[in-house]
Amino acid sequence: MTTREILERAKAASALLSTLTTEQKNAALLAMADALVADTVPILSANAADMAAAKETISAVMLDRLALTEARIAAMAEGIRQVAALPDPVGRQLDKTVRADGLTICKVSVPVGVVGIIYESRPNVTSDAAALAVKSGNVCVLRGGKEAWRSANAIVISLRRGLEQTGLPADMINLIEDTTRQSATELMKADAYVDMLIPRGGAGLIRACVENATVPCIQTGTGICHIYVDKAADLDMALDIVDNAKMSRPSVCNACEVCLVHRDIAADFLPRLQARLCDPARPHTAELRLDTAAATIIDGTPAGETDFDTEFLDYILAIRVVADVEEAIAHIAAHSTHHSEAIVTADPAAAARFTAAVDSAAVYVNASTRFTDGGEFGLGCEMGISTQKLHARGPMGLAELTTYKYIITGEGHTR
Amino acid sequence: MTTREILERAKAASALLSTLTTEQKNAALLAMADALVADTVPILSANAADMAAAKETISAVMLDRLALTEARIAAMAEGIRQVAALPDPVGRQLDKTVRADGLTICKVSVPVGVVGIIYESRPNVTSDAAALAVKSGNVCVLRGGKEAWRSANAIVISLRRGLEQTGLPADMINLIEDTTRQSATELMKADAYVDMLIPRGGAGLIRACVENATVPCIQTGTGICHIYVDKAADLDMALDIVDNAKMSRPSVCNACEVCLVHRDIAADFLPRLQARLCDPARPHTAELRLDTAAATIIDGTPAGETDFDTEFLDYILAIRVVADVEEAIAHIAAHSTHHSEAIVTADPAAAARFTAAVDSAAVYVNASTRFTDGGEFGLGCEMGISTQKLHARGPMGLAELTTYKYIITGEGHTR
Repeated sequence: MTTREILERAKAASALLSTLTTEQKNAALLAMADALVADTVPILSANAADMAAAKETISAVMLDRLALTEARIAAMAEGIRQVAALPDPVGRQLDKTVRADGLTICKVSVPVGVVGIIYESRPNVTSDAAALAVKSGNVCVLRGGKEAWRSANAIVISLRRGLEQTGLPADMINLIEDTTRQSATELMKADAYVDMLIPRGGAGLIRACVENATVPCIQTGTGICHIYVDKAADLDMALDIVDNAKMSRPSVCNACEVCLVHRDIAADFLPRLQARLCDPARPHTAELRLDTAAATIIDGTPAGETDFDTEFLDYILAIRVVADVEEAIAHIAAHSTHHSEAIVTADPAAAARFTAAVDSAAVYVNASTRFTDGGEFGLGCEMGISTQKLHARGPMGLAELTTYKYIITGEGHTR
Repeated sequence: MTTREILERAKAASALLSTLTTEQKNAALLAMADALVADTVPILSANAADMAAAKETISAVMLDRLALTEARIAAMAEGIRQVAALPDPVGRQLDKTVRADGLTICKVSVPVGVVGIIYESRPNVTSDAAALAVKSGNVCVLRGGKEAWRSANAIVISLRRGLEQTGLPADMINLIEDTTRQSATELMKADAYVDMLIPRGGAGLIRACVENATVPCIQTGTGICHIYVDKAADLDMALDIVDNAKMSRPSVCNACEVCLVHRDIAADFLPRLQARLCDPARPHTAELRLDTAAATIIDGTPAGETDFDTEFLDYILAIRVVADVEEAIAHIAAHSTHHSEAIVTADPAAAARFTAAVDSAAVYVNASTRFTDGGEFGLGCEMGISTQKLHARGPMGLAELTTYKYIITGEGHTR
């Protein structure tokens, strides 16, 4: 099918969804999970074909992301069952006003409609996104990466069978067949069919969406996250937090890329940070990229022009010495991607100033930036991390896949 | 100043605003109102110059919208004082989770940042938008119509003096000096400076924003609003509602443009509707544009191809006879701008089906679409009516000018 035909089917399916009950959606989700497990063999076979075709062209890390196993398929099914167990985000009464003249104004949550998702190679994104869409009453149009297309297609075939078995339209879940750049552009401009676009991927994809999309678009993911170690910090705590935020999983968007250190404690803290992160006994050691002031205290790579504006996604940490919390706030304002930033301090005034002034989705006091995650925030699941300010900010769960409408009931009221 | 310089000042001012107190903002608003009244003479003089220059080029209706009087300036000042009296939308705790490990996650409302507003010739939009921005802690960048620029500039000079008198930065309120299309395009693409763009104007402006904006953009206003008169309608009530929705103020976006009538009651209802709306004793009578079925019952203009897709903003009503509520819903899905639609019926099942299936910002049962308005909905004020689905839907008040951030407090928590 052409991308246009898929979009037309998606839009048509969306008109049918407004009155789905929670029971119908949950039954469909459980059937989708069962279908995925039942289809383990064909899904693994499609994945093997993807892996064979991609072996020459993508890195070992990407190949690992692409790889499916029986256990990974079981985990995807379990993820769908967990979404089924979450509360229904649709049909909640968000507000209610009864006017003096008796006119009743109710604000209720409703599905967004058709949600487009552009993503890359991890096959579990296919089932996660589809499950979140079904639970929130939305139709999804998935446009995955070329390397993972056979896997995504096999997964979508199973999920659609699960929908049909429980009487819901299979067209709630749609996979675009064309994996060229053309289909991504077509999806970005399909405002006649798509209500919300969620690009999940690198900075290039996000920027392409911002530049080209006529569909309202959620910017996700890019995280140049900062940790500011204040002069009033507990330095042991600061070491633990920076270590966790930088080293526990550097490839994710909530990992720390930049450490700002108050000048009064820099001579104490930086040698300890270096000893900790660069300890040769660790499985991985960090490369430190230092501004001039930090370089007078410890050894490391001199920071280049772009090092304070780069999402390294690697065992690399840029370090700058700052005069005070205000200079830290100003640095973050100039360089942050508005994802997650932290202050480590025992001074409540510094913490209050930092949390008030830093304009990011998640602002931490004495905790690691690694907590910015739908599961950790108690949302139960996640469609991505929004780094923009409209509609949704930070982790996007089911509620962020809804909008609202006003239902107004009168008895012949005129104005 | 160039548009770029104004945007740079706006962005710089926005960094100062995160810790404004409610008292500071309210004091500034009251000073702004006083400054406006104190400057009545220079504002009227600037307005007279606008009127003289525009007399040849714009219609009488537009000239009336542009005209200021001492009373209109006093009303603008009173509007600002009313905004001062509203609750502060910033700093509200929207949600709070304390995890089992003690990590505390607070979701709090914060200003959006820099809000761009593109509008046309009514000078009161200048003071309304500025007041809403100040109350919500946002910086506004106003880009008004060429015909009203002198008036808007005089108003902005007064408002900025009010800010300065109370110690707030004058750059919270900015008027772009260039009134060519170039500055509107520059504002649409200024995503490095502007967090949200609100175009207020006709369909052409809205479409230009959707096509060109890289700044997240709220679609406002265009209203092709429908009233469906069900077979179970109280026909007297239906007459009152259609009369009010069509005739009370046809130039506004919540006026009704299309009436859908159930075929079982069309022969009763349509002659009465015609008698009511076309009564020559009225100050204005309606022109009816009829589909083929309606034309077999009453006289009127045959509906042309575009009559069911036109925001007439005039004493014109398109009428179509439909088979049932499902056909009404399908017609609305195909032709509505998702603003406001109404059903008139005494049948609760038809009402429930209509409110569930119609995908518009405001869906009415037995009431006029004319109520879709921030003031009528109890928001106290309004920045426009959103007809899109992300961030805000329907009337946008102060809350819709905020976003949120998560503030997470730990005691050295790592993941």
